[in-house]
Amino acid sequence: MNIVTISQNISKIEFALFDGSCGEPVSKGELKNWMNHEIIGGIPGKIATHFSKSLRKQEKTFSANLVCIRVAYGGQEFKSPEIATARSLEKLKKIENAAPMHIPALIELIGAFKNYFRGTPIALVFETSFFTRLPERERNYAINPGLAKEISLQRFGYHGIFHERAYEYCHEKDKRLSRIISVCLEPVPEICAVMGGSPVMVTGGATPLEGLPGETTCGDIDPLIILSLSENLGWGPEEINNAISRKSGIYGLTGRKMDFTELFSSADPDAIFARRLILYRMLLATGSAIAAMGGLDAIVFSGRYREIGGQIHGYLSSKLGKFPEKHEILPDQLLKLTTCSGMLAMLKKDRTHSQKISLDNGYSF
Amino acid sequence: MNIVTISQNISKIEFALFDGSCGEPVSKGELKNWMNHEIIGGIPGKIATHFSKSLRKQEKTFSANLVCIRVAYGGQEFKSPEIATARSLEKLKKIENAAPMHIPALIELIGAFKNYFRGTPIALVFETSFFTRLPERERNYAINPGLAKEISLQRFGYHGIFHERAYEYCHEKDKRLSRIISVCLEPVPEICAVMGGSPVMVTGGATPLEGLPGETTCGDIDPLIILSLSENLGWGPEEINNAISRKSGIYGLTGRKMDFTELFSSADPDAIFARRLILYRMLLATGSAIAAMGGLDAIVFSGRYREIGGQIHGYLSSKLGKFPEKHEILPDQLLKLTTCSGMLAMLKKDRTHSQKISLDNGYSF
Repeated sequence: MNIVTISQNISKIEFALFDGSCGEPVSKGELKNWMNHEIIGGIPGKIATHFSKSLRKQEKTFSANLVCIRVAYGGQEFKSPEIATARSLEKLKKIENAAPMHIPALIELIGAFKNYFRGTPIALVFETSFFTRLPERERNYAINPGLAKEISLQRFGYHGIFHERAYEYCHEKDKRLSRIISVCLEPVPEICAVMGGSPVMVTGGATPLEGLPGETTCGDIDPLIILSLSENLGWGPEEINNAISRKSGIYGLTGRKMDFTELFSSADPDAIFARRLILYRMLLATGSAIAAMGGLDAIVFSGRYREIGGQIHGYLSSKLGKFPEKHEILPDQLLKLTTCSGMLAMLKKDRTHSQKISLDNGYSF
Repeated sequence: MNIVTISQNISKIEFALFDGSCGEPVSKGELKNWMNHEIIGGIPGKIATHFSKSLRKQEKTFSANLVCIRVAYGGQEFKSPEIATARSLEKLKKIENAAPMHIPALIELIGAFKNYFRGTPIALVFETSFFTRLPERERNYAINPGLAKEISLQRFGYHGIFHERAYEYCHEKDKRLSRIISVCLEPVPEICAVMGGSPVMVTGGATPLEGLPGETTCGDIDPLIILSLSENLGWGPEEINNAISRKSGIYGLTGRKMDFTELFSSADPDAIFARRLILYRMLLATGSAIAAMGGLDAIVFSGRYREIGGQIHGYLSSKLGKFPEKHEILPDQLLKLTTCSGMLAMLKKDRTHSQKISLDNGYSF
């Protein structure tokens, strides 16, 4: 069985080919600057060529049984994974305004895959589905509900696939572990409290910008700072967005493009300062998560920088260790989750899902 | 001894006259819509007339030994209370941009008091002085330090007088109580973690808007919401500021002007929803505060709505009570602090302060 996974952000598409086992990919690659009308139509062909070449070396031929596309934002419309149909594309179009950079290009991309891989099911897996179950107290801002509805204003998390799997990973190991803090270490990191399988509290907000500082994102800041940048410095929306989304976080604090792995091994004084600040924001979020769950059974680290989880775990333990013993913090659990295994687990798990996917080899979800 | 206290915000001045005991004021009153060039010069005279009339009934005459003016924002410039001199007015002028509504009118008001009460010392007591000692990790945002300096961007708290006194109140009761959460219940509530007398963490931000939702303020929201209001609804800065500062919080959620006392006794479904949401934000902040201090010895409630502290304490205990026993949470402490006693305590305490205030009766700070 061949499963193609597609994970895209504004700047690139990462694609990978998995056999049924969902361990390491058989082949993988990426395409940069893909968000362009003239290019999108040809993307599935390029990816197929990439996979065909890889498989030819192993004297195999390429065909796809399932295409899995990771979708960063699906709003309240998508409460679970879906097979891409005309109806799901209509629903996506309806929430276009909430992610005007992403969704139109995504719709075009899905269309291109449908055209190229005729008859192959295309599954859409949403990072936000998990968070459609956030409690009301966590989901809502203290603003007028009419205004919130008008501009679709509510809290989401943006790494639902990782957080959901992190909980399941713990719970499978030991059924008594039911209050989990999941720390997703991606370029915009995210902490989520998961209790009994449901999200309780998350650092993300109406957009991924809110919460923890990231490689180039500021995280939580006073909203009036935005007005101050406009009034005191005369900045326009694009300049402000650029400053807080692309020139803040680690980059803003150190003046250097640096990922989390570098940050956690650097001896540069600015990097040490940035590391302390980010660790501290993680500590505060962890405190909130513990308060929201009334306790803590385990902390799990996932994401591409999960290897620094040990350092973060050490810091958090040294601070939270002063909480009495009953709060065991497990040795750090580095969750080695691939996008593929996460997405497929979500598809398999989703029992309420009415569309059954049957693959050629009789394997069905 | 007569001490005049002045506490002002954008819409009104509250004034009170205290004798040496600093219990209940001998006389008090307020003036609305005071921020007007043509009015400010006459304000001290109006206040003096008010006090004279009150005292005449008790067959006493009015004179002031000290005028204490509460200042909402003093930036990093004012690390302790000061006697208003030409130099302090210059320092205030330097930070005018950070509070362009408040400071120019305040400077004028101080001038008017100096003119009217010639020879009487005027003490300036700053709500932000306490927070000039915030640790770096708490004070700084994850943005470029150059930009932060350019627009004076750092975290403060805005109820330093209450928080400082709350700690001292606990510590005087029992020297072992050294990790205090101070919950100041004013129209814009604020939670502060105080450890060993110093602030460790506070919900306030670059402005009082960040943090907990208030009677009309939104509290923490995703900063990109501001850009969304501008781009999707075409709102200008004034309209946005109005929506998040004056039409959010309790008012935004319930559609009714309601103070915290009403909110906590209302059976209206919208009020219940707003109460739950605000209590939950207080719980998350409390969790962060505990994490920042590595534990908790007592929670203290102060401010004009301190009477609802019992309800808040009950809620927090029911959630945090699941934290092991070692974290004793004291029965709720309602701190009955007047602005006067708080301000005078700060003046008395300030040992590093070089300007000694000697009053006519030999009483000196």
